[in-house]
Amino acid sequence: MQKIPVAILGATGAVGQRFISLLEGHPWFEVAEVVASERSAGSTYKEATNWVLDGYPPTDVTNLIVQTLEDDLTSPVVFSALPSSQAKEAEFALAQRGHVVCTNASAYRMTKDVPILLPEINAAHIELVDIQRKNYGWTTGALVTNSNCTSTPVAMSLAPLRQFRPTHVQVVSMQAVSGAGYPGVPSLDIMDNVIPFIGGEEDKLTKEPAKMLGTFNGDSVTPFDMIVSAACNRVPVLDSHLVNVAVRFAEEVTVDDLLAAWENFRGPDDVANLPSAPERPVEVAYAQDRPQPRRDRMAGNGMSAVVGRVRECHAVDGFQYLALSHNTIRGAAGCSILNAEYLVAKGYVQQQTLPNAQTIRS
Amino acid sequence: MQKIPVAILGATGAVGQRFISLLEGHPWFEVAEVVASERSAGSTYKEATNWVLDGYPPTDVTNLIVQTLEDDLTSPVVFSALPSSQAKEAEFALAQRGHVVCTNASAYRMTKDVPILLPEINAAHIELVDIQRKNYGWTTGALVTNSNCTSTPVAMSLAPLRQFRPTHVQVVSMQAVSGAGYPGVPSLDIMDNVIPFIGGEEDKLTKEPAKMLGTFNGDSVTPFDMIVSAACNRVPVLDSHLVNVAVRFAEEVTVDDLLAAWENFRGPDDVANLPSAPERPVEVAYAQDRPQPRRDRMAGNGMSAVVGRVRECHAVDGFQYLALSHNTIRGAAGCSILNAEYLVAKGYVQQQTLPNAQTIRS
Amino acid sequence: MQKIPVAILGATGAVGQRFISLLEGHPWFEVAEVVASERSAGSTYKEATNWVLDGYPPTDVTNLIVQTLEDDLTSPVVFSALPSSQAKEAEFALAQRGHVVCTNASAYRMTKDVPILLPEINAAHIELVDIQRKNYGWTTGALVTNSNCTSTPVAMSLAPLRQFRPTHVQVVSMQAVSGAGYPGVPSLDIMDNVIPFIGGEEDKLTKEPAKMLGTFNGDSVTPFDMIVSAACNRVPVLDSHLVNVAVRFAEEVTVDDLLAAWENFRGPDDVANLPSAPERPVEVAYAQDRPQPRRDRMAGNGMSAVVGRVRECHAVDGFQYLALSHNTIRGAAGCSILNAEYLVAKGYVQQQTLPNAQTIRS
Amino acid sequence: MQKIPVAILGATGAVGQRFISLLEGHPWFEVAEVVASERSAGSTYKEATNWVLDGYPPTDVTNLIVQTLEDDLTSPVVFSALPSSQAKEAEFALAQRGHVVCTNASAYRMTKDVPILLPEINAAHIELVDIQRKNYGWTTGALVTNSNCTSTPVAMSLAPLRQFRPTHVQVVSMQAVSGAGYPGVPSLDIMDNVIPFIGGEEDKLTKEPAKMLGTFNGDSVTPFDMIVSAACNRVPVLDSHLVNVAVRFAEEVTVDDLLAAWENFRGPDDVANLPSAPERPVEVAYAQDRPQPRRDRMAGNGMSAVVGRVRECHAVDGFQYLALSHNTIRGAAGCSILNAEYLVAKGYVQQQTLPNAQTIRS
Repeated sequence: MQKIPVAILGATGAVGQRFISLLEGHPWFEVAEVVASERSAGSTYKEATNWVLDGYPPTDVTNLIVQTLEDDLTSPVVFSALPSSQAKEAEFALAQRGHVVCTNASAYRMTKDVPILLPEINAAHIELVDIQRKNYGWTTGALVTNSNCTSTPVAMSLAPLRQFRPTHVQVVSMQAVSGAGYPGVPSLDIMDNVIPFIGGEEDKLTKEPAKMLGTFNGDSVTPFDMIVSAACNRVPVLDSHLVNVAVRFAEEVTVDDLLAAWENFRGPDDVANLPSAPERPVEVAYAQDRPQPRRDRMAGNGMSAVVGRVRECHAVDGFQYLALSHNTIRGAAGCSILNAEYLVAKGYVQQQTLPNAQTIRS
Repeated sequence: MQKIPVAILGATGAVGQRFISLLEGHPWFEVAEVVASERSAGSTYKEATNWVLDGYPPTDVTNLIVQTLEDDLTSPVVFSALPSSQAKEAEFALAQRGHVVCTNASAYRMTKDVPILLPEINAAHIELVDIQRKNYGWTTGALVTNSNCTSTPVAMSLAPLRQFRPTHVQVVSMQAVSGAGYPGVPSLDIMDNVIPFIGGEEDKLTKEPAKMLGTFNGDSVTPFDMIVSAACNRVPVLDSHLVNVAVRFAEEVTVDDLLAAWENFRGPDDVANLPSAPERPVEVAYAQDRPQPRRDRMAGNGMSAVVGRVRECHAVDGFQYLALSHNTIRGAAGCSILNAEYLVAKGYVQQQTLPNAQTIRS
Repeated sequence: MQKIPVAILGATGAVGQRFISLLEGHPWFEVAEVVASERSAGSTYKEATNWVLDGYPPTDVTNLIVQTLEDDLTSPVVFSALPSSQAKEAEFALAQRGHVVCTNASAYRMTKDVPILLPEINAAHIELVDIQRKNYGWTTGALVTNSNCTSTPVAMSLAPLRQFRPTHVQVVSMQAVSGAGYPGVPSLDIMDNVIPFIGGEEDKLTKEPAKMLGTFNGDSVTPFDMIVSAACNRVPVLDSHLVNVAVRFAEEVTVDDLLAAWENFRGPDDVANLPSAPERPVEVAYAQDRPQPRRDRMAGNGMSAVVGRVRECHAVDGFQYLALSHNTIRGAAGCSILNAEYLVAKGYVQQQTLPNAQTIRS
Repeated sequence: MQKIPVAILGATGAVGQRFISLLEGHPWFEVAEVVASERSAGSTYKEATNWVLDGYPPTDVTNLIVQTLEDDLTSPVVFSALPSSQAKEAEFALAQRGHVVCTNASAYRMTKDVPILLPEINAAHIELVDIQRKNYGWTTGALVTNSNCTSTPVAMSLAPLRQFRPTHVQVVSMQAVSGAGYPGVPSLDIMDNVIPFIGGEEDKLTKEPAKMLGTFNGDSVTPFDMIVSAACNRVPVLDSHLVNVAVRFAEEVTVDDLLAAWENFRGPDDVANLPSAPERPVEVAYAQDRPQPRRDRMAGNGMSAVVGRVRECHAVDGFQYLALSHNTIRGAAGCSILNAEYLVAKGYVQQQTLPNAQTIRS
């Protein structure tokens, strides 16, 4: 099978590097274009990048010449790790030009005809792409967002519990420093410390999970009917966000009901077979002191949410539990790659239609 | 003024060291006796102690000979940093012998005639000592506990809000490693990690704050009528526990009401003048990213609770805010020292009455 | 191919866990027996073990019943993660009984007829096993040690430079907390700190590298003629030891000579083809701020030493450089596994000869 | 006594903040002017500053209006925490205008008529100010630098050993993140890691200590005759730099000689009485695992160097030991304040001579 060329926007940044790292050896996709700021343009990826992940960038990417957003990209699929400010204009323009854009930026998450896609929990939202194409006259273009990294463990852990009608959800997060990108959080701020504030994050948590858990109604997504409040904290952890979720349900439910719902949850079959889909989207940790960021972040190759310590919570007349997922894999690049795989599987990606598109040699 | 001799139980451990450090240069008390396990008996304090605080132990303590619980102590005031298992028997026996015992152990906290004393917020609970003396026929003995380190910021921040009748309180803590004593938390567990479980801690939070905020009814303490749930987490921070408190009130209340209540809170005058009392028992931090453990733990010399980020919390139909206090000062040794000062000020300590009691030379 | 059953001594400890983790899916070996203290005997490995590595123990080991050193082991190959005190007696007894013992303990490292084997750099030392068998009348038994974790990057980086005759070597180490085992280094000691002392470590560095770099003379190993001094420091890093090596050579040599020696170093062919052998035993990092513990520890799957920043050092009239290797992989369990592979490849392991030996079913 | 008004250049940065923190309640100096970049000009210090030290900025500074380098300063003494690039021009101009400039910048450290002053070890170097005044026709102006933060523990620990003629010095440093200023070292780089490179630092170590230990020859400083090599590492520590020093002496010397030299070292009497002078410029730590950054950095209020673990080092045919000092106190702001005190004490500061100079009210 010939691999599908993909472009990475914001390729030199922390999330861009995670895209490139996860795409190394991907069975369907091949990094063909890397896009960064003017400053890096014309350099090789290796020259332009201060690689902050472990080891070194994959050798087949190091010699790619960095392009800018001004250049005409030819890859049918574009992964975006742009800052939200740049994403607004650039991502729409690329979809307009015919690219399937899978983005980690927040700019379009709450836009009516744009899905926040986590295919195990809201596969039907992919049909918003049809609405987009109708609304804007696109034939091949599409714009699909992944979840905010902190909303991810909240939404993934609540998805199997929708049947019990969660109505009130209080989230307290302990988030990793990689969530702030690079250079991101100064060591002088976070060593031996907690920073109990992350700009804009709490607001996202009050809105995005309800959309993610909502129902595609043929035209848009009806958000799930629940109230979410959040308190977000940065802790001295490198990767993966841990959240404490206190939740009240409208239905009568027991701890065993919740555990069974998580244990039985798998997501649709056509998602479960995708290359980046984890065996279990939600894993239950039974040890009394799990999940832990360092020890559980790579569950399902970083694509699973891990839940644990579910118990009654009288203060909210409900339950509380912990949930965790890897913020730059499941909560960012990995989710967008899974979304792109699902778009391919459902026939939304036509390789041939892009102007100047070249197939990858090899 | 001649200083009052005090003994430290568990003097070589982490909390024992904090007692010794805080008592250096104390205007009323002088460390006269240090008590540790059999293994250390007969050594000097310096030889017996692996000092884990900064710097070195105070020179006037280093040459004290370590005694054991079998020895007859002569100090009227005894500070206990014993593990709960040992505290049960030893502390009662010492009170029985006529010592005023101020303890950090949890063994007696929920005992009917023993106060959990934080004098700024529940000074009247000191009268339980009179009940003790009546119940057991003690003339000089007394047994007074300080709060659990995690309950401390919860109770201190809620105390000024009692007027608004908090009914439901959801606490999520981020706790420092020093709370586990020494050697305590292995670095292999906590570096680049969060441990979302602390044995017994959540249970204490459901019970102790209600007692601490309760009313002395002439015989015992009627607990404050509220439901507390808790989720306790260990984070890679050296000192001070940060809690997120989500709370519903029975009364109508605004953010400004809460802020005003905290700003105006001072505690009784006869407490405010004690040597270890902070100027403000509760400080309000207005920066959007405060309080932070490292930067705020020494507020009021480690004796103040610092609150911040109060805002509405729709999920609990109330408010949420952050509170922080230094776990081994306000939440342990410092609180017991303040309690002892208050006991002295209220006439509960009679220096002359102990068998073999010697006055300190100098 | 039928796999060779192996036993792990000290299987529940930190290095024991690393053995089990590295042996998951090993092409030649299969963990058949796990040995720990009396306290764990009779439990399953899962019950007996507080797993401190990431994730969970491999499922094919979790149900093995923990045995003790009193039990008769049947595995031809025994990996030992025993503390040195226990290793002294137990390891010799097991070799005496016919087992090939590959150990991480230091007890026998300086014993005349026991090799400290790193096959890429001193493959000929394996012939000390023939001397052992002659000395003690063993037919199948053997006792082979791996290097101390801090000596490892020193010896591996100096090995390709032996041709230039290093004579004086000053080592300053920055060592990870996992080197102290579990619970090991208290977080109260190491967070925001450096502990500039590690008991016994500096002494090992003055002796072991010279033996490791020495020549098998037909009867024993003639140590390499060099003087090593060391200063060992514990730093807040989870895994991998970084050393600064300042070295004077008897031969005239340039920076380029040193780089070329490292770049060209591969070790013997019959080692390079072993399952756990890295492609390059010594990797050169050219970025000015590498090697770094976190970013370089998994080089060669944790089996390579990484060197960098070589430059002149006038104070020692020579050169200085950095070297790094993963302390619990290359510097412990991984090295012993490679040693066992080499022993198999050279015909030192006879599966059939052990009393009660069973072949692994599967 | 009327306090001397002082100005702080780079007042909003990390070292600038340390100056302000250390000057709170200073008996001789009062912060009268704060200078920062254009961006902050006209704001109050509180508005302009992201305070990164613990607690909050002193209240008597928070309302000062931030000025720029373009403004005419009136304070006789100017403390500079400017980046080296800006320092070059600005500091000379200020000295030219008549200010006594005490700077943490490196720009002038190796300039012939500018001292690197640590008054306990090279008090006579202050006479370079007379040379400056002669060379440039200044009457009140002066330019005095403090040591680089990593050179500080090297020079302070070697000063008492000059009598033994150290000839070869190999330094390996483990440096705190605060040495890089704010935002400085990204947490993504340093958590669970060591960065074994600090730009320009090793070069400074080869030059500055020799000048600092040198002799004022009536015209300039004859550097001490020794060769220094260095390897500099950033470790996950907040404050204070730890160095391992391996040194060869021309004289015969023993460990006891070195210890006695340190124990007896006090510096000149007219320095020892200055407000910021520590009781002992060099403290000896005798515990086998000291000095440690966290536990020893505040020795002498952060103004002492602490040495320990001195022992023979055969590889350099000499000795090795550890030395530590607080990088932003003794190695930066605190040293410049001590230098200014010494300049006042020796009559180099004339308060009356500045154009527009105002005396502080209070």
